[in-house]
Amino acid sequence: MSELRLTALTGFPQVASGDDLGLLTQAALARTELRLQAGDVLVFAQKVVSKAEGRRIDLRTVTPGKQAQELAQAVQKDPRLVELILQESRRIVRSAKDVLIVEHRLGLIMANAGIDQSNVADPASGEFALLLPEDPDGSAARLRERLHALTGYAPGIVISDSFGRPWRVGTVGVAIGCAGLPATVDLRGATDMFGRPLRVTVVGHADEVASAASIVMGQAGEARPVVLVRGLESRAPAQPAAALIRPQQQDLFR
Amino acid sequence: MSELRLTALTGFPQVASGDDLGLLTQAALARTELRLQAGDVLVFAQKVVSKAEGRRIDLRTVTPGKQAQELAQAVQKDPRLVELILQESRRIVRSAKDVLIVEHRLGLIMANAGIDQSNVADPASGEFALLLPEDPDGSAARLRERLHALTGYAPGIVISDSFGRPWRVGTVGVAIGCAGLPATVDLRGATDMFGRPLRVTVVGHADEVASAASIVMGQAGEARPVVLVRGLESRAPAQPAAALIRPQQQDLFR
Repeated sequence: MSELRLTALTGFPQVASGDDLGLLTQAALARTELRLQAGDVLVFAQKVVSKAEGRRIDLRTVTPGKQAQELAQAVQKDPRLVELILQESRRIVRSAKDVLIVEHRLGLIMANAGIDQSNVADPASGEFALLLPEDPDGSAARLRERLHALTGYAPGIVISDSFGRPWRVGTVGVAIGCAGLPATVDLRGATDMFGRPLRVTVVGHADEVASAASIVMGQAGEARPVVLVRGLESRAPAQPAAALIRPQQQDLFR
Repeated sequence: MSELRLTALTGFPQVASGDDLGLLTQAALARTELRLQAGDVLVFAQKVVSKAEGRRIDLRTVTPGKQAQELAQAVQKDPRLVELILQESRRIVRSAKDVLIVEHRLGLIMANAGIDQSNVADPASGEFALLLPEDPDGSAARLRERLHALTGYAPGIVISDSFGRPWRVGTVGVAIGCAGLPATVDLRGATDMFGRPLRVTVVGHADEVASAASIVMGQAGEARPVVLVRGLESRAPAQPAAALIRPQQQDLFR
């Protein structure tokens, strides 16, 4: 492809548990004066998907166990939040003051199991935390089906989150859910212009799409949680975001 | 910003040592029927910058030392290539069969010190390898000045490369050089819609721009090495890509 266009949907509303994201997206597309076309991809910030799926937890309902209490003291975090992080995780990868990096039960290596407290609730109404969707690839597939039913087009769907990274400063958008487009593009067997095998063999395609959309979403207000991406060529087979998680035995950094 | 557009410049030529990338870019912009505007950013694949700067090395001129010979056997790579990798590096981070991850002298943690052999030369003419630019932030600043002189506009410049990552499958575009735009955007002190501090505090902005451009460049042919990005809002101060390298003492994964 030689041109890519990313447009944030206008005025996407606050999302509450049980909301129909497909319907909200259809309305936001109309408000933005856009109609879905074949080949379109929609990127959703994880936050709106989690909210619609009722993944907001009232911290008053969380009782931290012994491990959470001890760990909370070490990392200087709310013990109830640490309890949720442990419940969502397979194991702790690194911990230090203010840092708790875990392997999420989905296999994602991420800070705080992706649990977030910003833009989740008015502090006047209590303290809440937002978990990742139960099954982000499943969420992406359902959103795709729902939009197909509503609009006649089945857009590719990426559910994005912001991840910190080893060695580099700053977060970048990453795909935690994906449907209808290739999460990775495998170039093995492809050659350069001189017939030599390529150095790069597999591209983290959906992660690049999530990073691109993250620029348009903006981080501070998170007021633009849905982005239409137009111009992607997706000749590779569609593949869920689980394909972006490197199996432990192939990872030199676990 | 709510709309971002990325356009690959049409018919960017093969680049040779000593070529004036600014002039080539000016011609390619005209060919693409684009004129620079205030706020534009141009992303250059590292490869064209390295080639223009004469960073292509004829492997016949390289004599591997003892360390390179031993390491080459362990990782199953050409000893001359390993010699170049060691010369470009501060230290080895991980090595295994087919894998050699180092800390490049610039501080970048990357495979093979960024040295590439694809799309570098016709194998009929010999075996060549391409090193990273000596100083990619300096290269970006010079390209920006050159384009300013040629066109009257000083676009932001990103020099991008493809990096593999711990924990995740596939490469993504990363900024190794940057001028005239913020490499990172610091949101510390910013709050969410409820006045609560944001979870994400620093965004790897130029890395997200490099990833977005990587989608448009395509990996296989690398035939579209220069991408115009239009619609970025860069309110944060301009900053070189060196700011994206996490200092060792702040890194839990070295």
